[in-house]
Amino acid sequence: MYSYNYLLSFTKSVFRKMGCSDHDSDIIADVFLSAELRGHASHGMIRIKDYFELWKAGRINVNPNVRITHESPSTAVVDGDRAVGMVAARRSMEIAIEKAQKSGTGWVATRNSNHFGIAGYYSMMALKHDMTGITLTNANPLVAPTFSISRMMGTNPIAVAIPALKQPSFVADFATTPVARGKLAVAEKKEEKVPFGFVQDKTGKPSDDPAILKAGGSMLTLGGDRVHGSHKGYCLSAIVDIFSALFSGANFGPFVPPSVAYLPLLEKKVGEGTGHFFGAMRIDAFQPAEDFKKKMDDWIETFRAAKPAEGEDHVLIPGDPEREAETKIMKEGINLVPAIREDLVKISAELGIDFK
Amino acid sequence: MYSYNYLLSFTKSVFRKMGCSDHDSDIIADVFLSAELRGHASHGMIRIKDYFELWKAGRINVNPNVRITHESPSTAVVDGDRAVGMVAARRSMEIAIEKAQKSGTGWVATRNSNHFGIAGYYSMMALKHDMTGITLTNANPLVAPTFSISRMMGTNPIAVAIPALKQPSFVADFATTPVARGKLAVAEKKEEKVPFGFVQDKTGKPSDDPAILKAGGSMLTLGGDRVHGSHKGYCLSAIVDIFSALFSGANFGPFVPPSVAYLPLLEKKVGEGTGHFFGAMRIDAFQPAEDFKKKMDDWIETFRAAKPAEGEDHVLIPGDPEREAETKIMKEGINLVPAIREDLVKISAELGIDFK
Repeated sequence: MYSYNYLLSFTKSVFRKMGCSDHDSDIIADVFLSAELRGHASHGMIRIKDYFELWKAGRINVNPNVRITHESPSTAVVDGDRAVGMVAARRSMEIAIEKAQKSGTGWVATRNSNHFGIAGYYSMMALKHDMTGITLTNANPLVAPTFSISRMMGTNPIAVAIPALKQPSFVADFATTPVARGKLAVAEKKEEKVPFGFVQDKTGKPSDDPAILKAGGSMLTLGGDRVHGSHKGYCLSAIVDIFSALFSGANFGPFVPPSVAYLPLLEKKVGEGTGHFFGAMRIDAFQPAEDFKKKMDDWIETFRAAKPAEGEDHVLIPGDPEREAETKIMKEGINLVPAIREDLVKISAELGIDFK
Repeated sequence: MYSYNYLLSFTKSVFRKMGCSDHDSDIIADVFLSAELRGHASHGMIRIKDYFELWKAGRINVNPNVRITHESPSTAVVDGDRAVGMVAARRSMEIAIEKAQKSGTGWVATRNSNHFGIAGYYSMMALKHDMTGITLTNANPLVAPTFSISRMMGTNPIAVAIPALKQPSFVADFATTPVARGKLAVAEKKEEKVPFGFVQDKTGKPSDDPAILKAGGSMLTLGGDRVHGSHKGYCLSAIVDIFSALFSGANFGPFVPPSVAYLPLLEKKVGEGTGHFFGAMRIDAFQPAEDFKKKMDDWIETFRAAKPAEGEDHVLIPGDPEREAETKIMKEGINLVPAIREDLVKISAELGIDFK
């Protein structure tokens, strides 16, 4: 088990050694460790290797000039200058919050960025300003639209954070697919099948093989099949893609660059890098903040009191599982499986820093 | 078969006779007929009776003072004054568009409204201003959160319209449940079962009975069950509810009033009427409008070229089915089933207007 502080400090050192400023390294480490704390290890320490390899391949810029290229009172377009995604994303949400302070709401579309970790991190930045935060990002294509077998979209997540008063905040952070890509990898390693409705084979036939992506298969959108509303998952994923890429000038859909160095960059470019979209809405641009947050408490308490189905314990509020994970992990520490630890040992040796 | 113009003119007459202004009657009829044209008959002429009965029960205000009660440069809260939903909704989206003209984006939360017809209508208002339109609304509770059997949410739709140049606009308009409520009613009338994943019985057991809502059952969220991501549908529906009700001061979740007069008003109120949320984003607050719309053409053409699955014809772009319906229905006319025609004959007799 590792302590939060040990891994935070280690992660900062890794990115400093790669050439990131202290400021940027602090941000990057904070996002990585937030993923671990919130129980989303798939976006935590396991990914440091991907960023390290992208850096070695010259595919990320550790000294970026993240800047506004266009703006209106409530909007901005940000060029991420090929930054580590966390650096471009955090600055973009800061700009959205600044816009919201003046205009009620702020909306920022970001291009020329990279994988930014957990989407919920940026939405949650809005909470302490008594704002609602919204984060969208596109991602490398693995998902087929309804009726298709072409991988046209990423797992394109949506994250929305809304403040409450005495109750913890409402934080929804979810991919627009039935499961995250990482769950398929876990099933594959365990040599288990997955439920139908997650993936299809290269002809579009339903499949329960978690490794089917390697054989020309694709992931399905939320809903699974047309009868169960997969066209709604397709709409959601498409909206995330268009907001992230077309408002910003990033690559869309099948042209989003891979977030790992072992996959080559695509020959065709239709924009710059990966795209994100951020929103911040000042609560008191609508309702007095105190009244609104009391009402959110009421909403949360009402939903918590929903009657559980037979065999179920209780109804969850979006954000509950992550909060429970955080309490547990802060107490017990962070477990790294041997393969991840070995990766980090190798990286630390290459960079000349300590890791035990 | 009825012509579009005949039913438009008839619908205007109905609402004028009920006491609505000419201006408001025109809006209401336009929304009703748009639903028919777009192939969403479930939100068309079949619903006129519901509004007529609500009016007779004194539950809608035909002479409303729809007004802004709070605002910032990019936001407003609108009190619908118990208007027919279309009247409050159309005015709210007009305000969102006016805000966007000045501030880049405009966001309006509306309370004290009623059922407003098809959500896509209001999003599409933004298109001719070279804006993206967003519409959300809550609705009377039929849907249970994941792990629960309590009806806590409506089918809470999301509609997003994005302009293109030569290609038709992207228009997504979908409930956050696998199917709309109306599909259950159709299956029930035909004495057919529905696929598992749409509804559950009063204990939370999966059901294929479309009439299960009458026996204490509930609808499920998009995703169907926890394994297939129903918690993501729950997040979406919850976000729509909070944006529509808590930003505006309307009733939330289980307290949203019924949109039919044969169901009594609830004893407990936590706000005013039904709530909506509207957004308008000026394209050129992000990118030159012409460039953006060309890129949308490119996006649409890329997705249209996705390879179809075996046995499928082609991939659809959100808005395609409605556009095809519109072309067909404008040519062939609007078919009203006998039961709906009889309702309209009765209403016309009560109001002293013609209907053949």
